[in-house]
Amino acid sequence: MEAFDAVDIIRTKRDRAELSEEQIDWVIDAYTRGAVGDEQMSALAMAILLNGMGSREIARWTRAMIASGERMDFSSLSRPTADKHSTGGVGDKITLPLAPLVAVFGVAVPQLSGRGLGHTGGTLDKLESIPGWRASLSNEEIIAQLEDIGAVICAAGSGLAPADKKLYALRDTTGTVESIPLIASSIMSKKIAEGTGALVLDVKVGSGAFMKDLDSARQLARTMVELGTDAGVATSALLTDMSVPLGLTAGNALEVREAVEVLAGGGPADVVELTVALAREMLTAAGVPDVDPAAALVDGRAMDVWRRMIAAQGGDPDAALPQARETEVLRAETDGVLCRLDAYGVGVAAWRLGAGRARKEDAVQAGAGVEIHVKPGETVTAGQPLLTLHTDEPERFGRALEVLRDAVTVQGAGAGETGSGDASAGHGSIILDRIGA
Amino acid sequence: MEAFDAVDIIRTKRDRAELSEEQIDWVIDAYTRGAVGDEQMSALAMAILLNGMGSREIARWTRAMIASGERMDFSSLSRPTADKHSTGGVGDKITLPLAPLVAVFGVAVPQLSGRGLGHTGGTLDKLESIPGWRASLSNEEIIAQLEDIGAVICAAGSGLAPADKKLYALRDTTGTVESIPLIASSIMSKKIAEGTGALVLDVKVGSGAFMKDLDSARQLARTMVELGTDAGVATSALLTDMSVPLGLTAGNALEVREAVEVLAGGGPADVVELTVALAREMLTAAGVPDVDPAAALVDGRAMDVWRRMIAAQGGDPDAALPQARETEVLRAETDGVLCRLDAYGVGVAAWRLGAGRARKEDAVQAGAGVEIHVKPGETVTAGQPLLTLHTDEPERFGRALEVLRDAVTVQGAGAGETGSGDASAGHGSIILDRIGA
Repeated sequence: MEAFDAVDIIRTKRDRAELSEEQIDWVIDAYTRGAVGDEQMSALAMAILLNGMGSREIARWTRAMIASGERMDFSSLSRPTADKHSTGGVGDKITLPLAPLVAVFGVAVPQLSGRGLGHTGGTLDKLESIPGWRASLSNEEIIAQLEDIGAVICAAGSGLAPADKKLYALRDTTGTVESIPLIASSIMSKKIAEGTGALVLDVKVGSGAFMKDLDSARQLARTMVELGTDAGVATSALLTDMSVPLGLTAGNALEVREAVEVLAGGGPADVVELTVALAREMLTAAGVPDVDPAAALVDGRAMDVWRRMIAAQGGDPDAALPQARETEVLRAETDGVLCRLDAYGVGVAAWRLGAGRARKEDAVQAGAGVEIHVKPGETVTAGQPLLTLHTDEPERFGRALEVLRDAVTVQGAGAGETGSGDASAGHGSIILDRIGA
Repeated sequence: MEAFDAVDIIRTKRDRAELSEEQIDWVIDAYTRGAVGDEQMSALAMAILLNGMGSREIARWTRAMIASGERMDFSSLSRPTADKHSTGGVGDKITLPLAPLVAVFGVAVPQLSGRGLGHTGGTLDKLESIPGWRASLSNEEIIAQLEDIGAVICAAGSGLAPADKKLYALRDTTGTVESIPLIASSIMSKKIAEGTGALVLDVKVGSGAFMKDLDSARQLARTMVELGTDAGVATSALLTDMSVPLGLTAGNALEVREAVEVLAGGGPADVVELTVALAREMLTAAGVPDVDPAAALVDGRAMDVWRRMIAAQGGDPDAALPQARETEVLRAETDGVLCRLDAYGVGVAAWRLGAGRARKEDAVQAGAGVEIHVKPGETVTAGQPLLTLHTDEPERFGRALEVLRDAVTVQGAGAGETGSGDASAGHGSIILDRIGA
């Protein structure tokens, strides 16, 4: 490979020109090897964030990140594979019921997941609240479990797209996260390297998501669907609402409990709706279109796969889940209608209560989080509990309550004739759009 | 001081908002202490380069960099002080005759200088070709020499604006050099911390300079004059042409030889013109307006100060200067008029011959460089020497000749009736504009 100069490459993007394929291949490889420094890559990332990348550049950048590590190969499996990726939201426990649900229909789900950072939770953090459950599996264990049970949720090995791992950590500390080319290439390099045959993206939109508006979420979804399709992965995306938390819980054990309710045929309507919709997308993309996923939640088939999946990774599906030592209740101050429950505020509160981490090396509290008693559109009376806060460290309540008080709006019953009309806004579908290949 | 978050500050500038004074003070201090990392500062520098800074931000940034270190104090001197700063060009040896010339008239010149990096030479590298001369002086030695002789050219101590020192090195490797706010604050923080009473800026324009066009050079000059004036330093700027090398030499010992010719009352017309013009600016700014600097070059007074200044720093003003072991001559291929001698090309060639360094830790060759025999506007005949290349390592000639052949244009005598008209372009003043407070 010809040697390039990092400064020339940074200047190219800084001066709004297109990076060549050779420049992209070189800079990703050199950064992975340490020949390009963090301070050079962060300057390049900022130039990319501000000046953008064209679709050819994004495709090559993604390919170079895949080439930085190993690729998994599920071709030995007797079943097709399908995976789901969510761009991250508050209360998003969908992966937990979804993976076993899809496996019911003979499609294997290799869910290689990450941990939470900031106000959005991580799937592995949630599952680790189940006593005995372990996130780390070898490639051989993953393949065996997929063949045997059909679903695996585990930690992504360090061998997949190591360039992305390094770049993601760098972006987090350098203000260069919010770039569609960098977000899309980061997600898709991992998912393509993971070797799934089909992929459904759950692109979150709203205050609790990275993408605050529908236009940029749509642009991110289109970019990712194009990257997946070009790489031979059957890819589609749902755009889903993240202005309100998903379900009635945000926090690790709290969310597992809710996921188990869904697998038992109950659970909040929005969680059930999205789980079934994503299952349909995954099954269709994997070549199994004409089945009824909702039925498998009700009749216990998904629950069976869940129990086998948890047990295969050392977890006890019957064990009591950890509970936080302390609780505090936020109550309605007046009679009225809850017209706003801001996802971002609830996410930050759960984080402040100990459910999330500020730095990679921090531990999380299994029991911490926020329990939601009322969703937007419902009427409340003064003194009625709106939210219950859970934590092991009561000194955390103050800063969590601070953000929650701003996250909640109760509109007095007499505030306007459209009160009940506004309230109905809470009952629409949370699926806003679908982007296909 | 309140604690800020580096990522918030980067995001502020990334999202095109104005940095507060508190944010600027914090980030410069934290970067100097190492609490803000290089990878964070380079992302911020790229955001500044692409999104700009307003004049209030630039002023505060400069002030924060000054506050990161010590300030020199020349108030104990019996004479006023004046300094000059050049933004860097090819063949720019002006500081060498200028400092002693100004000192002749009772104005002390504290020239705290740097070393060359890239295609522009460094004043200290040039003087170090004089046997015995040393660049490092203590603050006490600087003050004593200014009082006694009136002129010092020495290395800037590491205590002046350490934030700038660290940031400058970072910008060099991260493609974030070419930003007017960052260039202006870098230069002015050092010069204001240095404690000079008056300052004249020589802002170079053209292929051999950072600023390629007159508009951006004018903007840089205005920004710096404003920063100096606000800080109580009598500041003005000359915009001078750097499309053609200054004088007839580019290289360390070669340029010292030419400077000594100027101090002996001879030397190339452009070097004399600029030396005298800058001396007038400095003397006027320091309160000594009605003197004739040109006379002091001719009658030996400037030479006397030069000899004492060199001797005071251990140098032998009578010693023979180092000469390169090998030379090679580039000759005219046809009869005609030399209509172009590109400063950047000559600078790169001198650098490739060994006169400059690619990295800070590299050594330079004292004798290496380019000697110019013909300047634009002069007629040449086929076979006539245009340039002589000097180096200790003959394997360097190839890559130097490569860039020099492209740097020279000889227009055939019969090529057009405007031939002699074009040629006269070489004889205009190199001073393009003046920016006062």
